[in-house]
Amino acid sequence: MRILLVGAGGVGSAVVPIAARRDFFQHIVVADYDRSRAEAVVSKQVAAGRRAAGGDLRPEDRFSAIALDASDEAAVTAALREHRCDVLFNAVDPRFDMPLFRAALAAGADYLDMAMSLSRPHPSRPYELPGVKLGDEQFAMSPQWEAAGGLALVGMGVEPGLADVFARYAADHLFDTIDEIGIRDGANLVVEGPDGQETFAPTFSIWTTIEECLNPPVVWEDGGWHTTEPFSEPEVFDFPEGIGPVECVNVEHEEVLLVPRWVKAGRVTFKYGLGAEFIEVLRTLHKLGLDSTEPVRIRGVAVSPRDVVAASLPDPATLGERMRGKTCAGTWIKGTGRDGEPREVYLYHVVDNEWSMREYGAQAVVWQTAVHPVVALELLARGVWRGRGVLGPEAFDPVPFLELLNEYGSPWGMREQ
Amino acid sequence: MRILLVGAGGVGSAVVPIAARRDFFQHIVVADYDRSRAEAVVSKQVAAGRRAAGGDLRPEDRFSAIALDASDEAAVTAALREHRCDVLFNAVDPRFDMPLFRAALAAGADYLDMAMSLSRPHPSRPYELPGVKLGDEQFAMSPQWEAAGGLALVGMGVEPGLADVFARYAADHLFDTIDEIGIRDGANLVVEGPDGQETFAPTFSIWTTIEECLNPPVVWEDGGWHTTEPFSEPEVFDFPEGIGPVECVNVEHEEVLLVPRWVKAGRVTFKYGLGAEFIEVLRTLHKLGLDSTEPVRIRGVAVSPRDVVAASLPDPATLGERMRGKTCAGTWIKGTGRDGEPREVYLYHVVDNEWSMREYGAQAVVWQTAVHPVVALELLARGVWRGRGVLGPEAFDPVPFLELLNEYGSPWGMREQ
Repeated sequence: MRILLVGAGGVGSAVVPIAARRDFFQHIVVADYDRSRAEAVVSKQVAAGRRAAGGDLRPEDRFSAIALDASDEAAVTAALREHRCDVLFNAVDPRFDMPLFRAALAAGADYLDMAMSLSRPHPSRPYELPGVKLGDEQFAMSPQWEAAGGLALVGMGVEPGLADVFARYAADHLFDTIDEIGIRDGANLVVEGPDGQETFAPTFSIWTTIEECLNPPVVWEDGGWHTTEPFSEPEVFDFPEGIGPVECVNVEHEEVLLVPRWVKAGRVTFKYGLGAEFIEVLRTLHKLGLDSTEPVRIRGVAVSPRDVVAASLPDPATLGERMRGKTCAGTWIKGTGRDGEPREVYLYHVVDNEWSMREYGAQAVVWQTAVHPVVALELLARGVWRGRGVLGPEAFDPVPFLELLNEYGSPWGMREQ
Repeated sequence: MRILLVGAGGVGSAVVPIAARRDFFQHIVVADYDRSRAEAVVSKQVAAGRRAAGGDLRPEDRFSAIALDASDEAAVTAALREHRCDVLFNAVDPRFDMPLFRAALAAGADYLDMAMSLSRPHPSRPYELPGVKLGDEQFAMSPQWEAAGGLALVGMGVEPGLADVFARYAADHLFDTIDEIGIRDGANLVVEGPDGQETFAPTFSIWTTIEECLNPPVVWEDGGWHTTEPFSEPEVFDFPEGIGPVECVNVEHEEVLLVPRWVKAGRVTFKYGLGAEFIEVLRTLHKLGLDSTEPVRIRGVAVSPRDVVAASLPDPATLGERMRGKTCAGTWIKGTGRDGEPREVYLYHVVDNEWSMREYGAQAVVWQTAVHPVVALELLARGVWRGRGVLGPEAFDPVPFLELLNEYGSPWGMREQ
């Protein structure tokens, strides 16, 4: 397998050291708008000099860097062909999903992303009805992918991604009927400022966080999707492994759109443990129009306020040395167990920043997002997972995924509630 | 008097209809970086067709528009000479003070601004000691202005400006000794959004508001200046004419630097009735680094986050139709009266947005800032106020100013406390 990894940001730069230990692929071309960023990721891996377990290829033969504009569909198609890539691994902001997705289809390559094509609110009733939903543009093109014999595996990070695998696993192996599937994400991470004091610094792309948190959250219920006001239905969820209780609110997220397509459940929700401070920051950005992606003009130059917010904050990928704590992603399932009794479980995956920094030099949140698509690519490379068209993670057998994840040294857990 | 008015923003565009009713000047050249903005202000006045009381000049002969970059000192000097202007009236952000101030000196014109040259915090003890203070750069050049026989009247808006005139008036006519001079600014203005709901929209330049609110506030006490943490010493002040109690906090402002140079007082403070919501917005902007004027790079283009914040919010000058309420600026003096008894007065100026919109088509806050420098220019044009060097409003006799303000139809008030 030859992979075109588009995006050398937080997740992209964590993918390389994870993949470097595995031997399922021949080559990864790391592509970024800023070529020097892609080169830095490759150089770091070459300097580490680590070879795949049992492999004989040196890192300098398995990784290379190119400049690529993710919004330039023709350039991406050309890069896939020039580098003879079998799959495009999309690790950039979801606003670039569609050009990358179409470029892969045009080049005859498979496609993987960790966030689906963007939504647009309902024009008149945004907090009741969905408008264009996450992934709608991608699913609309599923017939073309099927006809071409290609696979687009969408939403294959941690959330969405592992969370969807957990939902399918619960349906296949733990439950007879499922009342509710609730994805719950929380952390106790703190970031120290240069002065040693705790500081405000988002641990994941603020661009994407704004997108998912300020759009109307979507809920699956009674066989259909509806939307609510941002930050609705606050609830305190007790996260495992010492993280403890965190206030979570409804957020627009892919799992709610993906899970019901393959798994039968009365209700599907996604709640994010943002915390009061982060919610206040997001509300303020919205109040000031700084969440907007519509350009404003500054002395003749057009810039998007949201891009400026992202550029003003520290790059989340660089925070690892100053972070402490753990992050947890998981899926809470309530229903009737195989024995006919009520059952409630939380399937989860926790990453300790100290561990991910020591083992991979990557901070916990981006490492956790990066590991699952690498596992999925390995299953595809080995032919364990196969498919055609546009598919979510829950379209595949979850068992080999969860087994292989353990082999990657990052086990998942299950808590009966 | 021929005037070069630099800046056709909120205050600049309110200056024109105020000045148009008066006959003390021959011509105002309205200059802006964006020529169309300057032209729009002039065209609006020409369309209104209003002539000065008793004057025979038509507006089209008294106002003209040019493009001018306020940061280009040589271009400003050339414009002053080309248009034979006697005075430069600075109505742009204070970051342009120094090039404009130096250009006026070079061209042999007088100079007036409404906010002094910028401060820089103390490098090691920013919340205890002042670093470079507001106006320091300007006062340092006072000898050159004196030698050239020119006048730079600095801080001559409403606050600073009228507030300083009030301080001098109290010292000259109301008090024997003054314990404290506290400038207090508050409003009950609300802005309606397009949906008819109250919305967040600053009624004055957010660029300047960030500058003054996030810098360490300065206090004059015991014969010297010291600084505090932003938003320190909150206090509820009861504003007159139905505005009522508003929470005020210490803010860095020119009056604290100007008043003690000419008026003897034990303590001088400035507190601004920001309100809890605005304070939270400013704190959040600071937390995210969006208050910064240091450019960030977005795909090769350098932009200042603070400029983007300003561009994302509605132009304060355009809010008048959607605003309701009153704004109050004033000076609270405590000390010993002429009769030897303790005395406490609040000298104030209130503008009702409904009135300023009806009378001048300008919203209350920018109108209130614009009227006082026009009154001052009239006093200078008529030779009632005279001076050399760099002087604040309190360097002049306050009585003719306060009398002429009444003639402008916007009376001031006094409340014994």
